[in-house]
Amino acid sequence: MLEYAEPVIKLIDEFKRLPGIGHKSAQRLAFHVLRMSETDVERFIAALQEVKRRIVSCSICNNLTDVDPCRFCSSPGRDRSVICVVEEPYNLVAVEKTRSYKGLYHVLHGSISPIRGMNVEDLRLANLLPRLKPENNEGVEVREVILATNPNTEGEATANYIKHLLKPLGLRVTRIAMGMPVGSDLEYVDEVTMDKALTNRHEI
Amino acid sequence: MLEYAEPVIKLIDEFKRLPGIGHKSAQRLAFHVLRMSETDVERFIAALQEVKRRIVSCSICNNLTDVDPCRFCSSPGRDRSVICVVEEPYNLVAVEKTRSYKGLYHVLHGSISPIRGMNVEDLRLANLLPRLKPENNEGVEVREVILATNPNTEGEATANYIKHLLKPLGLRVTRIAMGMPVGSDLEYVDEVTMDKALTNRHEI
Repeated sequence: MLEYAEPVIKLIDEFKRLPGIGHKSAQRLAFHVLRMSETDVERFIAALQEVKRRIVSCSICNNLTDVDPCRFCSSPGRDRSVICVVEEPYNLVAVEKTRSYKGLYHVLHGSISPIRGMNVEDLRLANLLPRLKPENNEGVEVREVILATNPNTEGEATANYIKHLLKPLGLRVTRIAMGMPVGSDLEYVDEVTMDKALTNRHEI
Repeated sequence: MLEYAEPVIKLIDEFKRLPGIGHKSAQRLAFHVLRMSETDVERFIAALQEVKRRIVSCSICNNLTDVDPCRFCSSPGRDRSVICVVEEPYNLVAVEKTRSYKGLYHVLHGSISPIRGMNVEDLRLANLLPRLKPENNEGVEVREVILATNPNTEGEATANYIKHLLKPLGLRVTRIAMGMPVGSDLEYVDEVTMDKALTNRHEI
């Protein structure tokens, strides 16, 4: 006998597709949805739909945004001579939280990881090089690119690749300091450690 | 500066409302949704909608189902003389998995927990007593009610309450054996322990 009705099984399967959600959690989430009011489920669905409808990738830096160019790229208050390269849009938030960085960003949407099928050509790097020319950067010359990819194997490989790509252009290419534990994830670092890592960045 | 666009913040907030999802997980899930294909998000939304549209509470046992009465209540293969009372629809699955129980169910949708504002009147018990009469049970007399609420304080209080309610009716009221670790949750028990607990049930 089928233990759950088919729509419940389908919803459990959908929850299981999400990262970090196993079978038991998916089951709990599906039953939570069953207990939610119609209004709450509708608001959840609306949030899912709105995010897909309104969020686009910034044409300059690839950050996810509801206005193009994004708030960072279009802000007159940001230092256009520095670009901080991060793997994911939520990694950018870890840098912002230090409140010590005032430059621009470039979001790669991944890191080099052959094991997960992510190669150099899958990184959103194509629009980084044109940004370094003053004519494409509101007349400002980019002096420095900070590589703030994760301090793990994939992030290091990615930083190395970008370093070799940018070095011939004669600008400063720096790497955030390994102040944080190697093997960890940028998303989980505290502000103070992240700040130290930014401050101690070194030329590579 | 707002670090995330407003639709992203909204979706993170919606994920945070789900049980067991903290801020970091909600963030990861929201960004995962942003990376999902339109088709995948639509299928997820359809699963949420379908579960709300098609799943109802069984008018006999309160189990969540897409047909009323549910598959258990309408099955000619189930022993109608035994009713197993569980707290949640997913607890019923833990009993089913033993493959040793062939009776009917009654789902309370909760347990007595004054601390969480759950009182006796919030349990879905009103339709249990009428079920015990043969005329409401396809002519079959209910010989036994097995109380399979969780082996924790709330589940024990609930079992005790139901015991006192049913004892005067002269039928057998049993409690699953405490073969599983006290303080744990029915959802996480393995089939063998659950089977032992069913087998060693004792009169209360």
